[in-house]
Amino acid sequence: MRSDSDPVVTTTLPAVPAIDESLREPLRAKVDGKAKPPGALGRIEDLAIRLGLIQGTTEPRADRATLLVFAGDHGLVEDGVSAHPQAVTAAMVRTFLAGRGTANAFARAVGAEVRIVDAGVAAELPAHPDLFDRKIRRGTRNAAREPAMTADELQRALADGAALAADAAEAGADVIALGEMGIGNTASASLLMHRLLPAPLEACIGAGAGHDPAGLAHKRAILARAAGRSAATEPLAVLAEFGGLEIAMMAGAMIGAASRRRAVLVDGFIVSAAALAAIRLEPAVRDYCIFAHCSAERGHAALLEGIAADPLLDLGLRLGEGTGGLLALPLLRAACGLLNEVATLDEVLAGAT
Amino acid sequence: MRSDSDPVVTTTLPAVPAIDESLREPLRAKVDGKAKPPGALGRIEDLAIRLGLIQGTTEPRADRATLLVFAGDHGLVEDGVSAHPQAVTAAMVRTFLAGRGTANAFARAVGAEVRIVDAGVAAELPAHPDLFDRKIRRGTRNAAREPAMTADELQRALADGAALAADAAEAGADVIALGEMGIGNTASASLLMHRLLPAPLEACIGAGAGHDPAGLAHKRAILARAAGRSAATEPLAVLAEFGGLEIAMMAGAMIGAASRRRAVLVDGFIVSAAALAAIRLEPAVRDYCIFAHCSAERGHAALLEGIAADPLLDLGLRLGEGTGGLLALPLLRAACGLLNEVATLDEVLAGAT
Repeated sequence: MRSDSDPVVTTTLPAVPAIDESLREPLRAKVDGKAKPPGALGRIEDLAIRLGLIQGTTEPRADRATLLVFAGDHGLVEDGVSAHPQAVTAAMVRTFLAGRGTANAFARAVGAEVRIVDAGVAAELPAHPDLFDRKIRRGTRNAAREPAMTADELQRALADGAALAADAAEAGADVIALGEMGIGNTASASLLMHRLLPAPLEACIGAGAGHDPAGLAHKRAILARAAGRSAATEPLAVLAEFGGLEIAMMAGAMIGAASRRRAVLVDGFIVSAAALAAIRLEPAVRDYCIFAHCSAERGHAALLEGIAADPLLDLGLRLGEGTGGLLALPLLRAACGLLNEVATLDEVLAGAT
Repeated sequence: MRSDSDPVVTTTLPAVPAIDESLREPLRAKVDGKAKPPGALGRIEDLAIRLGLIQGTTEPRADRATLLVFAGDHGLVEDGVSAHPQAVTAAMVRTFLAGRGTANAFARAVGAEVRIVDAGVAAELPAHPDLFDRKIRRGTRNAAREPAMTADELQRALADGAALAADAAEAGADVIALGEMGIGNTASASLLMHRLLPAPLEACIGAGAGHDPAGLAHKRAILARAAGRSAATEPLAVLAEFGGLEIAMMAGAMIGAASRRRAVLVDGFIVSAAALAAIRLEPAVRDYCIFAHCSAERGHAALLEGIAADPLLDLGLRLGEGTGGLLALPLLRAACGLLNEVATLDEVLAGAT
């Protein structure tokens, strides 16, 4: 069994600044001074304050949002952890590039741009202006039998993710939403949750994109074998052992977004597992993460609870692709509108006299 | 004590067609054929089907949305049911017309237009292109002492509301969102809920825009006096007894919107009380109502449960103005995007081969 004593070099990632707590009182006062009863906008008020703290201003913005969808394949599927064939990952990437995925439709509905990242799809993908080719390898190795990736592959994934998010921020994105596509990736996410939260493995495993009871029992057995192969608990070691490439790259993207003081919209179970890894690597990332929704995937509620995250939406979603994050984006814009556009109570009462 | 035997003429309101249940199976099949695991979009799938049934098509739209904010004053405030002065109603209307209310900011955030309706504000309001002057009278009479409005006033309110919503639909609105502004209107809403749900009066009364314990106790005493004055349980009689003008006009607007097969986005406690009245007047309206959120106002959760409504959002809002409805609008658009834009699983798998 491998352990944390194996050499895993700490990768060079951008520094994440602490959020500016000195702005909390001015932001609270600004919200409280608006033309409404105190507290009457509930969680939108909290969100306004959070966005101000993240961006370091009492006039935060959420106008421009970029969804980065990270795609990757998983060697674990060799052992049957998914009910779907691996080729679906590449097929869905092609669908996104054609603008016909659910993430594309939801992005149009809320006004966000979509970019796809090939972090490790096990197929050749066509060049496309909306596709970033950051393929580390054609899928991870089978984590039930060997480490999913090498320390070097992991570091490249983290660094590439950080650079992509930082670039999106530099290009003008106020908010970075993250999504994923990868047949088998709930399996990796379950192993990460198990080891990094930590939580009993059983509590971390759900049906993913769909399993009958026998399929789910098989998935549990394979994941138990993978977990038994390594005692890793340190975040870099856990990521290298259990994957996936797209999850590691998302963890890097969160660090990259936070380094540029951008809010990160966290989607469902798999993106939350990436957030867990990012937070264990760099705890300051936590304050930049906005957890969009509670997924119907088993384990997500416990994962969120374990990092004290109270998601904004609860709509029974379990698709991934960043769809839940997109649906929360209008709430961020409303929160900014409250701060930037709404009259103060004093202004209203002056007009009323 | 007045009773239902008092003459209340049934007003002439447009007919509400039943939703087209024959489309339920085709809509379900269309949703299930999309490139996603069955059911993976949870309540968005249900919403897509509902919008299709409402509009009578498998290609529903929610692109254009109009928020109608109905404003009115309440004679009950003479007896101190609100902690805020009545002049705030008119002051907030002026704020909306200046584009600086929370409803305006949220409408910009989600892409909706806002129109204000003076249903019965106790002040002169300036002419404005975004203001519909449908003032029935300057505030209701004091429902603790006499009927809030006459049968004729009620019928005008219902008819005006129906015409306004039908006009908005004819002008191109795919979705009609309703909001309200009226100091004292949680008091009327509580009385409507008490009599029309029905529910014990105590369970229907909350702090509204804010009350200390003594203020809340006083509000309870005044509402008990109002409730003791009339035994009305029939919806027209209850509306006439307890008001308010803006609530009655919203009930009419719901009937008008439904008559044009438009989805009605129902905001918080007061709009839900109007929905309750509309449903009791015309049960077919129920299928056109989409309940946006569960308010923090006491009584709202029980009201929703009483009409089997499961709201989409739960964000601790208790402002009104239609703010909660606006925040749910992107979910409707996402649901339409799912139906109209997302590839089928067959298309994706054909590309994968």
